Amino acid sequence: MKKFTSVKDIGAPSGYIQEAIKIKKVPFTPEKGRGKTLGLLFFNPSLRTRMSTQKAAKNLGMDVMVLDINEQGWKLELEPGAVMDGSTQEHIQEAAAVMGLYCDVVGIRTFPALKNAAEDYQEKVLNKFIQHCSSPVISLESATRHPLQSLADLMTIEENKKVTRPKIVLTWAPHPKALPQAVANSFSEWVLEAGYDLTIACPEGFELSEQFTQGATISHHQPTALADADFIYVKNWSSFKNYGQTKEGLDHWMLDAAKLEGCPDAKVMHCLPVRRNVVLSDGVLDGPNSLVLQQAENRIYAAQAVLNNMI
Amino acid sequence: MKKFTSVKDIGAPSGYIQEAIKIKKVPFTPEKGRGKTLGLLFFNPSLRTRMSTQKAAKNLGMDVMVLDINEQGWKLELEPGAVMDGSTQEHIQEAAAVMGLYCDVVGIRTFPALKNAAEDYQEKVLNKFIQHCSSPVISLESATRHPLQSLADLMTIEENKKVTRPKIVLTWAPHPKALPQAVANSFSEWVLEAGYDLTIACPEGFELSEQFTQGATISHHQPTALADADFIYVKNWSSFKNYGQTKEGLDHWMLDAAKLEGCPDAKVMHCLPVRRNVVLSDGVLDGPNSLVLQQAENRIYAAQAVLNNMI
Amino acid sequence: MKKFTSVKDIGAPSGYIQEAIKIKKVPFTPEKGRGKTLGLLFFNPSLRTRMSTQKAAKNLGMDVMVLDINEQGWKLELEPGAVMDGSTQEHIQEAAAVMGLYCDVVGIRTFPALKNAAEDYQEKVLNKFIQHCSSPVISLESATRHPLQSLADLMTIEENKKVTRPKIVLTWAPHPKALPQAVANSFSEWVLEAGYDLTIACPEGFELSEQFTQGATISHHQPTALADADFIYVKNWSSFKNYGQTKEGLDHWMLDAAKLEGCPDAKVMHCLPVRRNVVLSDGVLDGPNSLVLQQAENRIYAAQAVLNNMI
Repeated sequence: MKKFTSVKDIGAPSGYIQEAIKIKKVPFTPEKGRGKTLGLLFFNPSLRTRMSTQKAAKNLGMDVMVLDINEQGWKLELEPGAVMDGSTQEHIQEAAAVMGLYCDVVGIRTFPALKNAAEDYQEKVLNKFIQHCSSPVISLESATRHPLQSLADLMTIEENKKVTRPKIVLTWAPHPKALPQAVANSFSEWVLEAGYDLTIACPEGFELSEQFTQGATISHHQPTALADADFIYVKNWSSFKNYGQTKEGLDHWMLDAAKLEGCPDAKVMHCLPVRRNVVLSDGVLDGPNSLVLQQAENRIYAAQAVLNNMI
Repeated sequence: MKKFTSVKDIGAPSGYIQEAIKIKKVPFTPEKGRGKTLGLLFFNPSLRTRMSTQKAAKNLGMDVMVLDINEQGWKLELEPGAVMDGSTQEHIQEAAAVMGLYCDVVGIRTFPALKNAAEDYQEKVLNKFIQHCSSPVISLESATRHPLQSLADLMTIEENKKVTRPKIVLTWAPHPKALPQAVANSFSEWVLEAGYDLTIACPEGFELSEQFTQGATISHHQPTALADADFIYVKNWSSFKNYGQTKEGLDHWMLDAAKLEGCPDAKVMHCLPVRRNVVLSDGVLDGPNSLVLQQAENRIYAAQAVLNNMI
Repeated sequence: MKKFTSVKDIGAPSGYIQEAIKIKKVPFTPEKGRGKTLGLLFFNPSLRTRMSTQKAAKNLGMDVMVLDINEQGWKLELEPGAVMDGSTQEHIQEAAAVMGLYCDVVGIRTFPALKNAAEDYQEKVLNKFIQHCSSPVISLESATRHPLQSLADLMTIEENKKVTRPKIVLTWAPHPKALPQAVANSFSEWVLEAGYDLTIACPEGFELSEQFTQGATISHHQPTALADADFIYVKNWSSFKNYGQTKEGLDHWMLDAAKLEGCPDAKVMHCLPVRRNVVLSDGVLDGPNSLVLQQAENRIYAAQAVLNNMI
């Protein structure tokens, strides 16, 4: 596999989900990656992605080199043809090419600017990087998608589902800051690709880009959406329509225990990090139906399945 | 061993001291830790702790993942029940739980705020972390203790002592900034637990919390305290009584060669980093009686003894 | 080899060049460095040096510990005899000594201040570090030299040269910021030591220190210098004479395709990072004569040859 940036890169997700579940049983298989190197390039903070991807590589016997480009490297130029007489010191073209020479697989994490939808949704940084990197590239979350998270999420659903085609609700939640749509876009895309029943609940104006949600039911009424849910995925995102905007007065979208009364068996998911008592209440997060830590653990095996197909 | 946060976690220190001395003879034993991962979480700067603990893990064949949470991760919330609508992005509860899932042992370094004694001495961050982390936790220095340093210090005393029960003097030294009491607290606690003769010399108002010094002789007259010392441990700490305060006009507490005239065979110790010619004079630091580099080297074997009992 | 800071540390460069070329054929030889540790200390940003040196160490089976001293460690004092009552927290003497105890080889990267030539050209930080470090020390670029880069550069010339004694032109290029002379000094020193024909082209006032350029032809007329070149090494540096100064109005020194018309077979080199369309045009960088990525890749094997002679 030359790149892993969306579910489209792997076709149907079931093969990877099953592979990740199998890896979870015997994760330490250090022969395959011996002598191979994973390079991780971070433009943005990370805890789970940083550590789970490293752990996955180590399980495969790979070496890992991490570069926090903003603090440790050079300020990167992203524009083709730029006359670099300002503050940027290295073109992403060279950074990508050089990392490709040093590493057998390269992961890159880059967030959107949330100022211009067209620009973010072009995935300029990720695509430019892939174009110039001779080694396979893994998205560690890009402007519009977070595929390693989605693979771990679907693996977690597979481990917990009690019916063949569960009802999954992706519900918007409040947040004090404008966040990317990447996790929600990606989750929707993977869930639909897996053929599950998906409802997306969000306030008006917070609908995701339709390219990710074709086939989902969109609802602006959270209680209706949550009825009979098997899985509830809670996540904030900023508006796609009023691009990058948030809105006040939506605190009642927080998922708390009262909202689960109508679906007491529904499993609750979130990708973490989560703002407690803003996005999700303590009661739900610490309750028996929360899958958030299982999702986090599964990040290791999702990354390992992807790496395993690149080395 | 489920946690290593103070001498109390290991009972009598002699077993660990002997184990560390034995490890020093043959440090590279990479079979035991094969396939296991140490995670290191830093809230604060570190050179020796960062590198010696990594080296110890590598000697055991473990992989290491380092996270500088302030630069690389998310701003952590420490308060239980917090409504996280401010600047904190992730609760320490999730950070601890997730690191516990990714790592076989987790080390955490966290300094006190030095504003409120009761708060710092509760060890809120460390304890909250341990509570939510399913893997064993090592303190890499906490608000009130630095146990890996103390184990290395006692190992160094064991290697250099000429009598069974040496006289050890812990003497306060000047410093331009308010520093934690952690190293001094911890050293006192370990030395007394080891049954040595301990005198603590400090200016009035700089007495350590009594919970760490029961059994020590407290002196406010440095020359008297230093007489007949076998080991002199030099360290600054801010006041416990006037919590977190320092005081001007105490420069004469610096340990220089003249002060060693009455005890020419006394070995001089400091945990490093040290401000030369403020805490200790160049002459003493570079003199034949200085053990500071031996202490620093022994950090490897102290950490390795602890890790060895956790994996 | 106890230190690698300039070509003088290895005598004639041909042995190391041949060794690096041989390593490139079979780079992964993890037995020799097993159980050994490389420590890397960065005062300044780095992408290639950071990653290629790590990769070289991993190829040899070594473990690597990286310390970004400004962000992760303590603020270092460089002056002998300093009374450290200001902002510096640890003396380089202890940092060097401790890293020497923890690591089998230590690399250090430190840039010049570009304020005082005498001070920078004393290489105070590097030399102080070597003085107090008991393990072999590799310069990862110092105030006045970049020997790992130069070794990779000469290896690249060896791989591409078509005549025994190629004509090599080192040409100054524009840059919006004042840069060190290190890469240029070092390249000149190594090329002359290798016995090649070296011309250095630069604006008046930008001549390098003569200690590095004895035997080279100095020209202030770029077109004349470039005629019949086999290799053109493009690099900006600030003035040595007007120490650390740059000058406006020299944009015509940028190397673009038009300037290569007189020497169409000349290979073009640069150490990277490069400011596109300021130092070198896109056309030249992306053209068939550019060796910049080969140089970058060879950094691995240059570092590996050096490490191989230290462990």
